[in-house]
Amino acid sequence: MALDDSWYTESANGYGLALRFKQKLHDEKTPFQHIEIYETESFGRLMTLDGLVMLTSRDNFIYHEMMTHPVLFTHTNPKVVVVVGGGDCGTLKEVLRHKQVQKAVQVEIDERVTRVSEKYFPELCESNNDPRAVFVFQDAIKWMQESQADSLDVVILDTTDPVGQAARLFSPEFYGDCLRALRDGGILVAQSESPLFNADLIQHIHKAMKESGAEDVMTIHFPQCTYPSGWWSATMARKGQKLKGFRETAARKKTFATRYYNADIHFACQTLPSYLLEALEQRE
Amino acid sequence: MALDDSWYTESANGYGLALRFKQKLHDEKTPFQHIEIYETESFGRLMTLDGLVMLTSRDNFIYHEMMTHPVLFTHTNPKVVVVVGGGDCGTLKEVLRHKQVQKAVQVEIDERVTRVSEKYFPELCESNNDPRAVFVFQDAIKWMQESQADSLDVVILDTTDPVGQAARLFSPEFYGDCLRALRDGGILVAQSESPLFNADLIQHIHKAMKESGAEDVMTIHFPQCTYPSGWWSATMARKGQKLKGFRETAARKKTFATRYYNADIHFACQTLPSYLLEALEQRE
Repeated sequence: MALDDSWYTESANGYGLALRFKQKLHDEKTPFQHIEIYETESFGRLMTLDGLVMLTSRDNFIYHEMMTHPVLFTHTNPKVVVVVGGGDCGTLKEVLRHKQVQKAVQVEIDERVTRVSEKYFPELCESNNDPRAVFVFQDAIKWMQESQADSLDVVILDTTDPVGQAARLFSPEFYGDCLRALRDGGILVAQSESPLFNADLIQHIHKAMKESGAEDVMTIHFPQCTYPSGWWSATMARKGQKLKGFRETAARKKTFATRYYNADIHFACQTLPSYLLEALEQRE
Repeated sequence: MALDDSWYTESANGYGLALRFKQKLHDEKTPFQHIEIYETESFGRLMTLDGLVMLTSRDNFIYHEMMTHPVLFTHTNPKVVVVVGGGDCGTLKEVLRHKQVQKAVQVEIDERVTRVSEKYFPELCESNNDPRAVFVFQDAIKWMQESQADSLDVVILDTTDPVGQAARLFSPEFYGDCLRALRDGGILVAQSESPLFNADLIQHIHKAMKESGAEDVMTIHFPQCTYPSGWWSATMARKGQKLKGFRETAARKKTFATRYYNADIHFACQTLPSYLLEALEQRE
């Protein structure tokens, strides 16, 4: 029953996920982290950072679509969007599919993640030359502190897990800086881990976002095969307005194709299971 | 990166799922299959049949609730319900929570699965003494062929994967026998594997159900951490009526608690991602 070295395995707390690979394509230690790329047997290419799955060719579409389209179709007119982290450029690509976006800034601490993605995941980087795309390679904490107040419409926190350096990106202080930089009605969305394994973290994020001054907070969920538990979430916080409703007609008539997201999924992803409603003290 | 023998691993097609266990509690070869029970590190108890995960204490609630409540709240008045397979009794328990159910028959080929479950998963078997519960230990193919026409309201196919003996339970012939046994408006629901890995199987099930005379077919989906891909589906087929709508008021006022299912989830679980709508030739 043991899995040998032909498998990439990620395991924690008695749960493990494994993908068999044909070869390792890249192995690099940057000043920030350990980047590895594998050619897998059935998931296309796999990128790991510090031994944790970031994405595979096969299933990243769900995560990237769901980190982007629910928040962009909830905002009434998203013109300036910032992606924090997201060095693989998959979120940036989805953001740029929205025509009213005038500027999309990707603030990633490690330029090497983007350069490696350009080589091994060219399909995610195909919009990197879009004139609306701006690449900033620096610490997002400092960038957000120095950003102009009331200047952004959407901030997408496409970060790694809340451990080590990335833990600061899940703090009320950082959420406060993001909200300060957002215009009224602006929305912040953070990847918020597994609804099955991390309900306590989702509770913490709700509390932190409310403490930082958000008017309303909402969690959405979606399958994500290669993240722990196979089920993932994102949590939105809005400045000065409620999160009720979205541009449903625009979502139904969107001019670009999606594989997971659609207007009905927008409703569905906001619907929480009973145990999570209870944990978040929301009513059915 | 290898996982040693302290992990139970299930792997196929380059994808693997692993749960670390503290000890193996039971190991039995029956005339039908190999039953194993493990005490895991973080998922409570685990049952495997022929080396495939059937259920864990921690996450079986999602599967059992979603195999039961969507179909029972869709039917207008489910009085007679048959569970095919489901030897762990978790589905039967959820069925019996519906007060209007007068008779719930569990047709499981292997009595040992039920006896082992009574010992290691007593929480799933707590309704086994309900006077409405009937246990039949025989081949469901034969049972269904011999069942009276127009005598059942709901049939739940809580089966193993469509390989070996269980493959017959995914055939148009068996679906036809189920539909024959159902009353008009009766509903058949089959577990239909992973929407990510098995879209082709879901297509096949739709086709087979329609060929067997179903008036309408619909797939629902839900997370299921310990099944391959962490994402699962069930497909419903109705005799003589469309599958539109459900008893929403009854679902909102249900007299029993659930952990995953609620009336809003009922709507949400019917909403399919775009790629699956396309595969099933349904419109958004």
